[in-house]
Amino acid sequence: LFQLTILGSSGAIPAYDRYPSCQHLVIQNRYFLIDCGEGAQMQMSKLNLSHHRLEHILISHLHGDHYLGLMGLLFTMHLNNRVNPLHIYAFRGLTEILITHLRHSRSSLNFRIHFHELTENKIETIFEDDAITVETIPLRHKLSCCGFLFREKTKPRRIDKAKLFKGMLLQHIAQLKSGADVHNEKGEVLYRSDDFTMSPRKSFSYAYCSDTAFHPPIATQLNNVNLMYHEATFTESEKSKAVDTFHSTASEAAEIARLANAGKLLLGHFSARYRELDVLLGEARAIFPATELALESSTFELSA
Amino acid sequence: LFQLTILGSSGAIPAYDRYPSCQHLVIQNRYFLIDCGEGAQMQMSKLNLSHHRLEHILISHLHGDHYLGLMGLLFTMHLNNRVNPLHIYAFRGLTEILITHLRHSRSSLNFRIHFHELTENKIETIFEDDAITVETIPLRHKLSCCGFLFREKTKPRRIDKAKLFKGMLLQHIAQLKSGADVHNEKGEVLYRSDDFTMSPRKSFSYAYCSDTAFHPPIATQLNNVNLMYHEATFTESEKSKAVDTFHSTASEAAEIARLANAGKLLLGHFSARYRELDVLLGEARAIFPATELALESSTFELSA
Repeated sequence: LFQLTILGSSGAIPAYDRYPSCQHLVIQNRYFLIDCGEGAQMQMSKLNLSHHRLEHILISHLHGDHYLGLMGLLFTMHLNNRVNPLHIYAFRGLTEILITHLRHSRSSLNFRIHFHELTENKIETIFEDDAITVETIPLRHKLSCCGFLFREKTKPRRIDKAKLFKGMLLQHIAQLKSGADVHNEKGEVLYRSDDFTMSPRKSFSYAYCSDTAFHPPIATQLNNVNLMYHEATFTESEKSKAVDTFHSTASEAAEIARLANAGKLLLGHFSARYRELDVLLGEARAIFPATELALESSTFELSA
Repeated sequence: LFQLTILGSSGAIPAYDRYPSCQHLVIQNRYFLIDCGEGAQMQMSKLNLSHHRLEHILISHLHGDHYLGLMGLLFTMHLNNRVNPLHIYAFRGLTEILITHLRHSRSSLNFRIHFHELTENKIETIFEDDAITVETIPLRHKLSCCGFLFREKTKPRRIDKAKLFKGMLLQHIAQLKSGADVHNEKGEVLYRSDDFTMSPRKSFSYAYCSDTAFHPPIATQLNNVNLMYHEATFTESEKSKAVDTFHSTASEAAEIARLANAGKLLLGHFSARYRELDVLLGEARAIFPATELALESSTFELSA
């Protein structure tokens, strides 16, 4: 499963039932929260997303609309007797904020937090295991800010069960699945991997491009990404406002998706000045047709 | 107008669409926010309560469910170009929390905050003007904690318009309204105030009793209060849990209302273990019949 759920699509001022930035991502049973705006825990609870399963919370930058829901979520995990450690990825400063809250409420959490400090202006792999990698995407904003690129590694070949026959050894099947041929004692090929296996399932990728001015160099890193979220705070008519505040217009988000040859683009971080979002969507689709709005409660799945 | 609107009725863990503690109070055009749990600004916006009008935010104590919505609300006021100063009343520590947030987002607010530090275990008048007073209610909780008692002062007598006649001087009418008789140059009574005025409208009071263990001594301070909110985290069957955590049961809330001879009792700060709240309401009404649940979006008005 590679499933993204949008919990917040709003820019700095929440409006029209849009919540500040927050997304929930599951890749092959790994659970991520990407940014954690105010109300994140209520949104999770509304959509029946369990905070018990969360292992990683990634905070793109320290503007309030991207992290003010974190302390409340941590208190709720604590009160629900969480034991499992939690990994938090953020720029320096977040720990001091959390510790200040904890100190004044005379609380300490009953689970361990592993804090991973992000580095500015540099692509870094911040998480890797046997199935996926997560790397940062350096962005241009008023504060140190980065996005996150999630990639599935090449998946194992799949055994073609129809080709197996009685009496085959389990160790030989495992060997075939890994892509290696099986040889007999004389070194002759007994079974060829290609005869017993099918090509692996497709590996997918998702890029979360948080608050940023229009910054085309990221397209290289994001080349051929399957799904891309890019902030789209303003319409073209407010382009000068976008420049002043280090944000992007919907067309600029679409231009990045086009340059990166993305599979699909999701727009979010909408300014409170827009009650209706049709203009933003229309402007983006004129440049990159496969564009959707990343609205609260919507879910996007990547599957072969 | 004396109008209370409930924005949050939940205990520490928000659940079932109940938000953490927050109430909006208007008394004669003075606008107060009482506690400011996570999501307060979204709740205000949903109920069309303007943050522009807020002049006073009172925080009962520094547990997250009572103040984690404050920083987001302040950022929203800032982004909406607030100019008017804001008064915040809280125990020491809140300023450090706010300053830590501001420092790491490299922000400074474009309006002034007047911070009023509360004192523990002592009744203090924290606000007074020509029409109302607000005093603290010392409570018993794990952290320094107080409630707030809002009282209207005696209102001016009302002119009985039917009794006025052509040619009366405005200054004489004002004098009569203030309760003083009008004399002629010889010192003789020209008009008696009682003949031209009616008794003032009734003055009302509201007591907000935030998180507290059962603490009957407060009933003296709250004697004859018109409307009382008292936390009611647990049912009687969880009384030992209430004792351990310095919270109250619904019956204990009712017992305080009975001792104080309150006009009406509102229950809130419900534990996440209760999806339905009938048991809490029933237990309180058995002791104090004029009890209601302080649920999100509900409004309570005091008027003659």
